[in-house]
Amino acid sequence: MLLLREAFYGTRRFDDFARRADVTEQVTATRLKALVRDGLLDRVPYQVAGQRTRSEYRLTGKGRELYPVLVALMQWGDSHASAPTGVPVRLVHAGCGATVGVSVRCEAGHELTPQQVSALPGPGLPDGWADRVLAPTT
Amino acid sequence: MLLLREAFYGTRRFDDFARRADVTEQVTATRLKALVRDGLLDRVPYQVAGQRTRSEYRLTGKGRELYPVLVALMQWGDSHASAPTGVPVRLVHAGCGATVGVSVRCEAGHELTPQQVSALPGPGLPDGWADRVLAPTT
Repeated sequence: MLLLREAFYGTRRFDDFARRADVTEQVTATRLKALVRDGLLDRVPYQVAGQRTRSEYRLTGKGRELYPVLVALMQWGDSHASAPTGVPVRLVHAGCGATVGVSVRCEAGHELTPQQVSALPGPGLPDGWADRVLAPTT
Repeated sequence: MLLLREAFYGTRRFDDFARRADVTEQVTATRLKALVRDGLLDRVPYQVAGQRTRSEYRLTGKGRELYPVLVALMQWGDSHASAPTGVPVRLVHAGCGATVGVSVRCEAGHELTPQQVSALPGPGLPDGWADRVLAPTT
């Protein structure tokens, strides 16, 4: 998740991942490999004139779609685990400058608390799982 | 996260957590204890007439605020890891029936992609970390 966060901040090169996430080169290599294997990052060759070919790591569509998870985790951390001096990083809309966050909404636009949401069995729920997965609405 | 998901579905009792999350009683006990220790669940005694006192586990405010993380993970899983038959569980707004999801927005109401969001150093960022945490906006 640390390396993914850096990828969302715009990091693409191996050395930058290692330095910004503050992990060893070996850990960086192992994790980048796993993220590529899982289809969250693409490995793309690039070359600076006169140097050997290196790899850049770019978010795939599947990786980019984890953005709401990352922002939700940051938001929760800001509320419950921040330093007394304040949040370490602020996310703002580059276009208008307003603070960025996630919200749970329905397609009709209503912002919702957990109590206002019902979990219903979907078409892919295995037979016999309805009672195991979904609690009664009491 | 499995037990938290069940708590959001309305599960409160030990036996229901174990059965619905499909984990052993020992794992359930260990995880519930950790969730209480971390302040995500409250342990509350209850008694059914004629039986011994038992404990219910209820989400705290801190636990409830993880809801956007859970919904974001479910949404990502639905897009990228669902069975070919469809999603296992549908979340709907109990009031209007519309499908529920998370979105990243600014306070002015604009829905945003990662490219439209800037990460700025906050008041709690340790001295000297700006370059380590925040990539240049290239």
